Amino acid sequence: MRDYLDWNATTPLRPEARAAMLAAMDLTGNPSSVHAEGRAAKMALERAREELATALGAEAADVVFTSGATEAAAMVLAGQDIACAPVEHSAVKAWCEESLTVDRHGIVTVPDPVRATLQLANNETGVIQDLPQGLASSDLTQAFGKIPLAFDWLGITAGFVSAHKLGGPKGVGALILKKGHDITARIRGGGQEQGRRGGTENLIGALGFAAAATASLRDLDAGLWEQTEKRRDLLEARLRDAAKSTIIVGIGARRLPNTTCLLTSGWKGETQVMQMDLAGFAISAGSACSSGKIRASGTLQAMGFDDELAQSAIRISISPMVGDDQVNRFADAWEKAYSRWRDRNGQAAVWA
Amino acid sequence: MRDYLDWNATTPLRPEARAAMLAAMDLTGNPSSVHAEGRAAKMALERAREELATALGAEAADVVFTSGATEAAAMVLAGQDIACAPVEHSAVKAWCEESLTVDRHGIVTVPDPVRATLQLANNETGVIQDLPQGLASSDLTQAFGKIPLAFDWLGITAGFVSAHKLGGPKGVGALILKKGHDITARIRGGGQEQGRRGGTENLIGALGFAAAATASLRDLDAGLWEQTEKRRDLLEARLRDAAKSTIIVGIGARRLPNTTCLLTSGWKGETQVMQMDLAGFAISAGSACSSGKIRASGTLQAMGFDDELAQSAIRISISPMVGDDQVNRFADAWEKAYSRWRDRNGQAAVWA
Repeated sequence: MRDYLDWNATTPLRPEARAAMLAAMDLTGNPSSVHAEGRAAKMALERAREELATALGAEAADVVFTSGATEAAAMVLAGQDIACAPVEHSAVKAWCEESLTVDRHGIVTVPDPVRATLQLANNETGVIQDLPQGLASSDLTQAFGKIPLAFDWLGITAGFVSAHKLGGPKGVGALILKKGHDITARIRGGGQEQGRRGGTENLIGALGFAAAATASLRDLDAGLWEQTEKRRDLLEARLRDAAKSTIIVGIGARRLPNTTCLLTSGWKGETQVMQMDLAGFAISAGSACSSGKIRASGTLQAMGFDDELAQSAIRISISPMVGDDQVNRFADAWEKAYSRWRDRNGQAAVWA
Repeated sequence: MRDYLDWNATTPLRPEARAAMLAAMDLTGNPSSVHAEGRAAKMALERAREELATALGAEAADVVFTSGATEAAAMVLAGQDIACAPVEHSAVKAWCEESLTVDRHGIVTVPDPVRATLQLANNETGVIQDLPQGLASSDLTQAFGKIPLAFDWLGITAGFVSAHKLGGPKGVGALILKKGHDITARIRGGGQEQGRRGGTENLIGALGFAAAATASLRDLDAGLWEQTEKRRDLLEARLRDAAKSTIIVGIGARRLPNTTCLLTSGWKGETQVMQMDLAGFAISAGSACSSGKIRASGTLQAMGFDDELAQSAIRISISPMVGDDQVNRFADAWEKAYSRWRDRNGQAAVWA
């Protein structure tokens, strides 16, 4: 048996998304075709757009389907002169100057919002930012589905979201634009998405995304993520009891209800991930995208943690699908591994 | 009952693709994660890449998964100084200078292959080009799965393909690069696809694409497309019998085995598409992408057809799934509509 505690990396496909995707598989037409099959595909796509827009607190006309948040970020950031903080996802940092500063709690200062991008929530630490009015763009990927969010109330010009972070399929996302704001297409031809993004639409993916977003919103309304937060707090209490000197990153800030970033100075995060994997738990050291690389998290270094601390980071990210039993099972296994490490470490110190 | 005869616009999802996608829905992990769930996802993705590469006659390391052929085209054409012919798809023309010339049969002359892109087969007419050695890139989208093709034998630097043209899902495609050739990523972050295309991979789509490609190749090997060609020839014989003055575009050139582009001077293609749609048949006027727009096909104009002829074009595109009965049913319906149009047209001329 395995316990999947890496929801910020990606999520299992929700049953609602699966059902919508199965239905979409029977749509034969190309949404750009004018015949009955094409019109049926177009109608399904536009219904999915309406549904996603409702879940986002935006209007359908302002939602552009993309192949993911990474593409959405490139669409508004590439070739622009936008500032960001080192805590941003690599898909944002790829296009921006990392000139914004971050404090010990992970909070970013934005002197000039119109020329800046700022994530709503961090993937590694879960730290939530207050987005300044007029902000050029925001990576909403980790926040969407986990905390209440309404794009039209954020006062920002553009937002990026991804389906696979809230139970939808991988490889589909959206760019949301403030009403009246337009962009030059980065992928061209065919004039799809109001000329903002060419290429035949990922119909199955878009329908899966919309269904997952609606289901996530329903969970949020039902208070399931408040229960998740309690469970996360239980996890953190247990981990801190087991290892008094551990640090929970961002604990002084508002955080996503599901994310724990834990530092245990001297105990490599990669080692912990490997040991927990062997013990049956999926967690990560930093973000999934950078988890193959053995290097300290730029997010944690920017928050002022030294290399040894930053390299010890593990991220546990849960969801309403994760119960108390799983949280306790993980805490037991981690505590056991920690004791072994501490004993070996202690002995080493004695022998030295 | 409906007859879908618009396979060049998009295809129904093949059962093999559906099965592969259903299996992929059970993969929880992110291919970039190092834990067991991540490794399983990565392994499935790389197996799909191997499978697709085999079907393409290429090597897995040279296949980059994208959100479609449109994105693949942008990845190698944007910002380059590449020439193309007016017969190319809009996803190619968006980035190129339309300076190459086309003859009456649809054949393109390429004076400088290294700085040119040329489709292997045209989406509207089915006309097949001989690709010159050293060609910068080729849109293989319509050819892949319909005629034998081996990327490594084409002698070109880059190729674009799309899943939904051969029974795979919409919203996934690939860029194939000649060994040793690299590109700068257009979508960045995370370092996926060997740094050539950032963003979490469309795992479900990639697995569907690979399965559809393998199945298409099997059909091709089994001679199903030769049967399709005979059926297409039967269709064309019937249409020409019914209306002697019609023109079948590209009949003097090698064509895809499934495509008929029919001109009936004075009878608007849009009208025919609408009438056939009401009669239960899905066909198109020009390509799907431009089919919403009432304007003559650039492809046909470039081939030297006047506006009235170009505006009369309809495209019927079939597949091994389309039987003799469907072809005959369509020919009957078209003949009936043609007779009505000719009679009305004749009367109008008398009354004038």
